[in-house]
Amino acid sequence: MDNDVLRRGFPTVHVKFGEATAILVGDALQAHAFLTLASLDAPGDNRIALVRELAQAVSAEGAAGGQAMDLSLVGKHVELDRILVMHRMKCGALVRASVRMGALCGIAEDAAHAALYCALDRYSACFGLALQVIDDILDATADTATLGKTPGKDAAARKPTCASIMGLQAARQFALDLLRDAGEAIAPLGPRAERLSQLLQRANAYLLKHAPCA
Amino acid sequence: MDNDVLRRGFPTVHVKFGEATAILVGDALQAHAFLTLASLDAPGDNRIALVRELAQAVSAEGAAGGQAMDLSLVGKHVELDRILVMHRMKCGALVRASVRMGALCGIAEDAAHAALYCALDRYSACFGLALQVIDDILDATADTATLGKTPGKDAAARKPTCASIMGLQAARQFALDLLRDAGEAIAPLGPRAERLSQLLQRANAYLLKHAPCA
Repeated sequence: MDNDVLRRGFPTVHVKFGEATAILVGDALQAHAFLTLASLDAPGDNRIALVRELAQAVSAEGAAGGQAMDLSLVGKHVELDRILVMHRMKCGALVRASVRMGALCGIAEDAAHAALYCALDRYSACFGLALQVIDDILDATADTATLGKTPGKDAAARKPTCASIMGLQAARQFALDLLRDAGEAIAPLGPRAERLSQLLQRANAYLLKHAPCA
Repeated sequence: MDNDVLRRGFPTVHVKFGEATAILVGDALQAHAFLTLASLDAPGDNRIALVRELAQAVSAEGAAGGQAMDLSLVGKHVELDRILVMHRMKCGALVRASVRMGALCGIAEDAAHAALYCALDRYSACFGLALQVIDDILDATADTATLGKTPGKDAAARKPTCASIMGLQAARQFALDLLRDAGEAIAPLGPRAERLSQLLQRANAYLLKHAPCA
């Protein structure tokens, strides 16, 4: 929908195969995701919890709605709060679902595990938002090789972003703060959360490398 | 994807709200369908069977793949078999899923109910195909008020259809035969299948009214 010709360094699907095929591939992959969850070797109730989690994340209240809001903001002057709500619905909901679905594979979301799910929710809220803020920053600072997509698109499309509203340096510090907050949220989980912690370190290093302090 | 400006007598979503919104509404409604199934008041295993059924029906092997095949056939000379395969994947898979999901809400698909599911599969294969053949016929014979969409699109788009390959009268007889076969398939089920039988009668009457014998 940003009509970019590149993603991850490769031609985008609609450029290579046409718009109709791109739409159908999206539809088919969404169906395949639910089929995969429904076919897992796990009790029916666990699989249903996973299906609900993914469905909510990509729904009108999640990624699909966030993307619609994203399109509606183009060319408008908006407060930072609106951008943050949009980011939480869009990428934020997917990150949250990814983290929660990993947990739901092994651990029921019940009263006995309330503290665990609370920590994971705080982690994914901060990490998901940090990823979007970093994406906003790098669109303004990085080159095509780094991004794997065309840089400068946000400004060209007059899209309000965290970077355009806060300024690059403040956005950079905001992202670093969010990554730190995410780390603090999972600190009590100890070694169980090591891989979640590694993701934060990678995002942190990526930001420092591609958007060094002015 | 047929770029029609009308569906069921109303402006199509992409005409009224733009293409991006139309795509997102499709994505969001698909997610909402799975969320609805996952939230039913039924045992987890039943809900998982329903999710699998719907996911398969709209997958690359079902409606999404059938629609892609539909687009790929435009302007080509093809055998009737290819059209039938496409129809079975597209509308056929959705009709089959609708019928099976109704059954799955109350009756497990196990050895004890093999005859029931076999009858329902035969019914839905014949009925789903009949609906597509009738759609092909009416695109060539009916007006906008009857169709709720623009007639003559298939010929204008040089789309091969059952009507264009078999001829209108043969296609009409084919649809009537399919509706009769569907009725025979569920006859052994007795009054339990009354509503399925009513659907056949409605389709039959609709065809006779809007595509009378030449």
